[in-house]
Amino acid sequence: MSQDHTHDHSCCGGDHHHGHSHQNSEGAEGRADLSGPAESPITVEVTRGSLVESVHRARACIVDAGGHVLARWGDIDASVYPRSAIKSLQAIPLVESGALDAFGLGDEELALACSSHNGEARHTELVRSWAERVGLTLDDYECGAQIPYDPATAADLVRRGEAPTAFHNNCSGKHSGFLTTAKHRGERLKGYVRYEHPVQQRILGVIEQMTGQDLFGAPWGVDGCSIPTIGIPLGAIAYAMARIADPVDLPDARAAAVTRIAAAWGRHPFLIGGTGTFDTALMEAAGGAVLVKGGAEGVGCAVIPEQGIGIALKIEDGAARARDVALAALIRSTGALTEAQWARVPQLLTAPLLNRAGTRVGEVRPAAGWPAA
Amino acid sequence: MSQDHTHDHSCCGGDHHHGHSHQNSEGAEGRADLSGPAESPITVEVTRGSLVESVHRARACIVDAGGHVLARWGDIDASVYPRSAIKSLQAIPLVESGALDAFGLGDEELALACSSHNGEARHTELVRSWAERVGLTLDDYECGAQIPYDPATAADLVRRGEAPTAFHNNCSGKHSGFLTTAKHRGERLKGYVRYEHPVQQRILGVIEQMTGQDLFGAPWGVDGCSIPTIGIPLGAIAYAMARIADPVDLPDARAAAVTRIAAAWGRHPFLIGGTGTFDTALMEAAGGAVLVKGGAEGVGCAVIPEQGIGIALKIEDGAARARDVALAALIRSTGALTEAQWARVPQLLTAPLLNRAGTRVGEVRPAAGWPAA
Repeated sequence: MSQDHTHDHSCCGGDHHHGHSHQNSEGAEGRADLSGPAESPITVEVTRGSLVESVHRARACIVDAGGHVLARWGDIDASVYPRSAIKSLQAIPLVESGALDAFGLGDEELALACSSHNGEARHTELVRSWAERVGLTLDDYECGAQIPYDPATAADLVRRGEAPTAFHNNCSGKHSGFLTTAKHRGERLKGYVRYEHPVQQRILGVIEQMTGQDLFGAPWGVDGCSIPTIGIPLGAIAYAMARIADPVDLPDARAAAVTRIAAAWGRHPFLIGGTGTFDTALMEAAGGAVLVKGGAEGVGCAVIPEQGIGIALKIEDGAARARDVALAALIRSTGALTEAQWARVPQLLTAPLLNRAGTRVGEVRPAAGWPAA
Repeated sequence: MSQDHTHDHSCCGGDHHHGHSHQNSEGAEGRADLSGPAESPITVEVTRGSLVESVHRARACIVDAGGHVLARWGDIDASVYPRSAIKSLQAIPLVESGALDAFGLGDEELALACSSHNGEARHTELVRSWAERVGLTLDDYECGAQIPYDPATAADLVRRGEAPTAFHNNCSGKHSGFLTTAKHRGERLKGYVRYEHPVQQRILGVIEQMTGQDLFGAPWGVDGCSIPTIGIPLGAIAYAMARIADPVDLPDARAAAVTRIAAAWGRHPFLIGGTGTFDTALMEAAGGAVLVKGGAEGVGCAVIPEQGIGIALKIEDGAARARDVALAALIRSTGALTEAQWARVPQLLTAPLLNRAGTRVGEVRPAAGWPAA
C-alpha cells in the first residue's frame, strides 16, 4: 500500500455502547476522531477519444480493526448513507437471534441476505424456497416490486407477460432476513421496514456497536427498498468492515456471527450479485481473499480478512461506474489479489466504454494520484 | 438575471473563418478569450431524508450573440464534448445544402434531425417515411440499433418478439439528415459517420463558424451513434447557441437556415424528446420561448430567441439528473418563463426522487448560490 496518505493511529471508531467488553484501548477511548484537515478526494476519469470527458470525485479510507486509519482521501468524517454496502451488518441479527438456525437455513440464505442480486432464477428461487420454509408470503414483503437488474431475466418476464414481484427486488434476500428474524422473535411482521419497528431498531443498535458511533438523532432517509438508511461517517463504515475482517476485539457471540457472515459472503459470489456484476466478478477473481459490496449512490465497502482491514468509499456524485473502478483500485493497492488474478479481470480496473455499435470509444479509469499496487 | 457572476464584454468567440462577413467587432477580433480566473462551479444536490446524499458540480455560462459572457460558473474555456446538445448545428447543412427542400421534407423532419427521441411510434414512423421518401434503407444507417428510451415502447418490442433497429436509435433523425444531405450531394453513403467523410467535415466547418473556434486538431472522440464529437470550449458552445437566438451577424443564408431550424425545434417539442423527457416538458411549458436540448454526459444547451442569448452547461461527472435541474435553474434565472409557467412543471425545477414503492424519499435540486429568477 502506498504510504503517501497514511495517517497511523488516527482513531476511527470504537465500540463503547451497550455494555460490550473492550480489548482495544482506542476503542475504549471513544468515537471517530479523525483529526487534521481532510485530504483531497481522488478522482476517476471517463475518457472518450483524446479527451477526459467527465470526472468523478471519490472519498475513501482504509482502516484496521483497531480503528487506525491507514489511508484516507477526502473528508471521511462527513456522514454518508451506506445504502446496500452494509447488508453484511444488517444480517447480523438474523444469525445472533438464532433465527437462521431455528428455521434450518444455511450459508446460501445468509449470503443472499447480504446481496443486491440481479433477480436471476437462482436468486428468486432461493428467496421463494426461503419464504416457504419460514411461512412467509409475497404479501409480507414490503420492499416493492422491481424489474430484475439482469436484462435477460427482465426480457423473459416481459415475454411471458408476467409482472415483476418483490422477490425480484434486489433486496429480497435482505428482506427475507428481516422477516425471518421478526417471525422468530414473535414480532409483528407488518411495518417491519419502519424506523420504529424492532427489526430496524435492532439493526440500528448493531450498526452503532460495529461502527462505534452514537447514531441517535443521526440523519436518515428512506432507502430504495423502503427501510431506513442512516448517515454514518465514512471512516466509521470502514471501521465496521475492518471488524468483520478481524473480529478479535468483538464479544464472542458477535465475533462468531460476523465470522459466519463473512464465510457465507465469500463463498457465494454469484448470490451476492449475479451475471456481469462487479461484486461477483471481483470476488470470483479474488477466490475468497476479498469480500466486496457496492451500494446505491456510489458507496462501496470491502473486507480483507487476511490483512484485517476494511475499506469504505463514496463517489460524491453517486455514480456506480466510478464506484466500481475506485473500489478495484483501492483493493489493488492492498495487494490482496495477485497481478495474475487482476489480469483475468482487466475490465474491473479500467472499464471499457462501448457505444451503441459496440465499439470501444473510451474508458473509465483511476486518474493520476492513486496508490500503486 | 443575477449580476453576481456577470462579466460583461469578455469576448466569448467570433467567427472569422471561411470568409464570412462580420458586423460585430468582438467577433472580428478572434476566438474565445475568457480572461481571468474561472469562477467556482455551481452544484446540484441530491437529498434523501435529512441529508444531502450526493452532489454534482456544474460549469455553465450565458452568452449573447456579440460573444459577451453575461454569466459564468466554473471553467468555461476547457474543451467539452457537446454530444447531442448541438444537433441543431449539425442540422445546418441539411437546410443550407438544399437537401431538405429538394426531397420535399419539412418542419417535422427538421425537428427530428435536432432530436434525441424516445423511439416512440411517432418518432420511428417519421424516420421510416423520411427514409422511404429519400430512398434510404435501414442498412444505410450506421448509428447502431438501440432499445427505445421509452419504457412502454421497449416493452412492446419485447412482447412482439421484435429486435430494435437503427430507426429506434435516439439519433435516427440526425442520421436521416446526414444521409439525406449526402444523397443530395451525390456523396458515397457508406462511411458517412467517419471523421474524414464529407458529411462530417462539412459539419465540422459549420461548427467552427458558429462557435468561432479553430477546431483543426481539436480533441475528438466517437459518439454513442458512431459519429465524431469534437471538444469545444463551453463558452463557445453557448456563443453558437446565442447566434441561433440572434442570427443578425450571420451571413444571410446561414441566418435563414438557423432561423428555420429554430422554428422547427420550437414548434415540435414532442419530436425533440418524447413522453416524459425534460426537453419536451420544458419546451411545452415555455410555449416556444425557449429551445432546449440535452446531450449525453451532462451537457445541455438552451436558446432564448427573445433575449438573443445562449446557455451551455456541463455537469462535470456527466449525470443527466443534474443536467436537467441545472438547465432549468439557469433558464429560470433569465426570466424567459413566467412563474405561472414554471408552476405547471415544478418537477423540472426540483426533481422528486422516488423509491421502488413509489414513495418520495428525496429530491434533486439546485444547491445554494444559484442566480435567482
